[in-house]
Amino acid sequence: MQTTRLEAFSDAVLAIIITIMVLELHVPEHHDWTGLWHDTGLSLLAYVLSFVYIGIYWNNHHHLFQLTERVSGAVLWANLHLLFWLSLYPFTTLWMAESDLARVPTTAYGLNLLAAAIAYVILQSRIFAAEGPEHALRKALGNDVKGKISPVFYLLGILFAAISGEEARWATVLAVGLFVLVAIIWVIPDRRIERAVTEAS
Amino acid sequence: MQTTRLEAFSDAVLAIIITIMVLELHVPEHHDWTGLWHDTGLSLLAYVLSFVYIGIYWNNHHHLFQLTERVSGAVLWANLHLLFWLSLYPFTTLWMAESDLARVPTTAYGLNLLAAAIAYVILQSRIFAAEGPEHALRKALGNDVKGKISPVFYLLGILFAAISGEEARWATVLAVGLFVLVAIIWVIPDRRIERAVTEAS
Amino acid sequence: MQTTRLEAFSDAVLAIIITIMVLELHVPEHHDWTGLWHDTGLSLLAYVLSFVYIGIYWNNHHHLFQLTERVSGAVLWANLHLLFWLSLYPFTTLWMAESDLARVPTTAYGLNLLAAAIAYVILQSRIFAAEGPEHALRKALGNDVKGKISPVFYLLGILFAAISGEEARWATVLAVGLFVLVAIIWVIPDRRIERAVTEAS
Amino acid sequence: MQTTRLEAFSDAVLAIIITIMVLELHVPEHHDWTGLWHDTGLSLLAYVLSFVYIGIYWNNHHHLFQLTERVSGAVLWANLHLLFWLSLYPFTTLWMAESDLARVPTTAYGLNLLAAAIAYVILQSRIFAAEGPEHALRKALGNDVKGKISPVFYLLGILFAAISGEEARWATVLAVGLFVLVAIIWVIPDRRIERAVTEAS
Repeated sequence: MQTTRLEAFSDAVLAIIITIMVLELHVPEHHDWTGLWHDTGLSLLAYVLSFVYIGIYWNNHHHLFQLTERVSGAVLWANLHLLFWLSLYPFTTLWMAESDLARVPTTAYGLNLLAAAIAYVILQSRIFAAEGPEHALRKALGNDVKGKISPVFYLLGILFAAISGEEARWATVLAVGLFVLVAIIWVIPDRRIERAVTEAS
Repeated sequence: MQTTRLEAFSDAVLAIIITIMVLELHVPEHHDWTGLWHDTGLSLLAYVLSFVYIGIYWNNHHHLFQLTERVSGAVLWANLHLLFWLSLYPFTTLWMAESDLARVPTTAYGLNLLAAAIAYVILQSRIFAAEGPEHALRKALGNDVKGKISPVFYLLGILFAAISGEEARWATVLAVGLFVLVAIIWVIPDRRIERAVTEAS
Repeated sequence: MQTTRLEAFSDAVLAIIITIMVLELHVPEHHDWTGLWHDTGLSLLAYVLSFVYIGIYWNNHHHLFQLTERVSGAVLWANLHLLFWLSLYPFTTLWMAESDLARVPTTAYGLNLLAAAIAYVILQSRIFAAEGPEHALRKALGNDVKGKISPVFYLLGILFAAISGEEARWATVLAVGLFVLVAIIWVIPDRRIERAVTEAS
Repeated sequence: MQTTRLEAFSDAVLAIIITIMVLELHVPEHHDWTGLWHDTGLSLLAYVLSFVYIGIYWNNHHHLFQLTERVSGAVLWANLHLLFWLSLYPFTTLWMAESDLARVPTTAYGLNLLAAAIAYVILQSRIFAAEGPEHALRKALGNDVKGKISPVFYLLGILFAAISGEEARWATVLAVGLFVLVAIIWVIPDRRIERAVTEAS
């Protein structure tokens, strides 16, 4: 099976996820800057974070399938599994933001990030299984520091979120800080894969 | 006529249907796990079920049109007819979930599932009519056990839903159980078609 | 300029318009068939009508651009102009349905249908201008009875809607009947264009 | 890397942005023309303006990538950056309209327009960097009067918006007038680029 339609469908789903979060941004009732900040400040920041995350996944997805030629039925479902977790981002993002970074919603957000990361690893391994050991991407990834360090950071973030609360705002800060950190790590373009793509074409 | 644009349009519609259900998930007012479960637990589970269903239809649609080369005007409308019933999933899913699996909404959900299944059969037969008796997919489907058993299970589920109620929760369980069962049957990848696709390419 | 991206963009916009109307369907508060009919019956019927209308436009758009090879800047804007009027369908559809087919909203719906029809004619003429007099579609359309009769029916429908009201429900029925009639006329596949497409390919 | 998927993704995002604004249009509670105007008149006008703006960006994006063959990782992110600012249009448009063109929301709208314009310039310069000095578009753009005058007009508009208020409605009129003016300037098709596209193909 060719990858064209899988890519088109994923593009559409990711495009919708990245955009509909704006629909959840309630227009501020007040008409001054304080009102904007007070009513939607945190939601806007959370929107930026989730926008960047979906952007990262789109980027990586894009690279992954540029180096992939064959897809099996298992790959189709592994892809849908990834899209499922990503589709929950608007929901967990909004819950976290509206709760003012309360303990449980922030933990739920972290768990959502982690679930998507695991789904991505599964998708990648299904592609490797379908393509054989000589897959160009496998070589390009090398020891894949980013891919290995992200779940660790997510887990740490979830841990801090789980012990956070009204009396432990420092833990909230650390949790969210770790979620932001992972995003920053990934925004820096992945030169390894880019090089492999250039070499392959 | 070529199938490219029909596929692109269907991809976009399915991508939107699969994703907008998240917009209907009301963010829980409480900020703990009990609140999440109480406010949105059932909606989340219903979302998962409908996500899987749309995923199945996308998968089958994908396979169907990979083996199809010619489309007639009748195929275009049969496709829109299928998309119409699928587009009601977010509506019936939410109604069922918000009603706490009440009798009528659960029946309506089952009827929606059945209507989409019938629409898919119509689409398939329109394609066979346009492509002639030697269609690769017709051979690949063989006696098509899955395709024949699904409507039976849907009908049974609708029946159980119709007799369910406050005093007959067991019927609700059976109805929903059957809807879940059909989804599970279809998630198992269809090796017949996959083989035919591999052989044809 | 090639038509690929114009078609992809239009597909996405039409797919969104055809689907988001479901988001506007408020889930019935009651959990019985009467509740479904009372709370959303009219909205559901209006949804079906607008779904069919968008389906018709997608079909015609599809055929139109299958026979088109060159697009100018004017065509891009004529296409956006058409998409603009179509994008208002969810809005006018909902207003009409929620107002229980009141005079002004039904008139507004008719005006929206008419505006889209005019926009389509403009788009078609811009394409003819870009492609020259020997355009395959121009010949295929012939004297174009459907295209000429639709605006007349729309105008009649708008007229009846404008004189309708609490005391003149017959006019409402006639107005909506005419809007439904135009849809039915167009759902019958356009054999002329289909034939031309087959001949051209 | 090829531009196909970047274009498809951008098309989907732009299609969603241009369409979801309709979801924000609250259906008027009254069922007469005055009600339509009173409840949604300003929102409808703001919708038209933002629809045209997104249409302009889609047009320019379309032209830009028709002349582009290679994209780097930096281009992918510059493109996402542009989409981010455009994705805020529905939010700032609605805030401005619902506030009855109050001082701060109108300023915020202008800042959003300016941010998108800057993001577009960044995207363009990233493409030039990836493609080398002999880029066909660079020559086509020439001294790029439109591109240089727009930010000036935006800045002026923001300035007028910032000093506007209940007692200075003339400043509001000037601000919005400038935002409309820039849109008009851009709707006039860019013959330079169109010519270059024609020559290149």
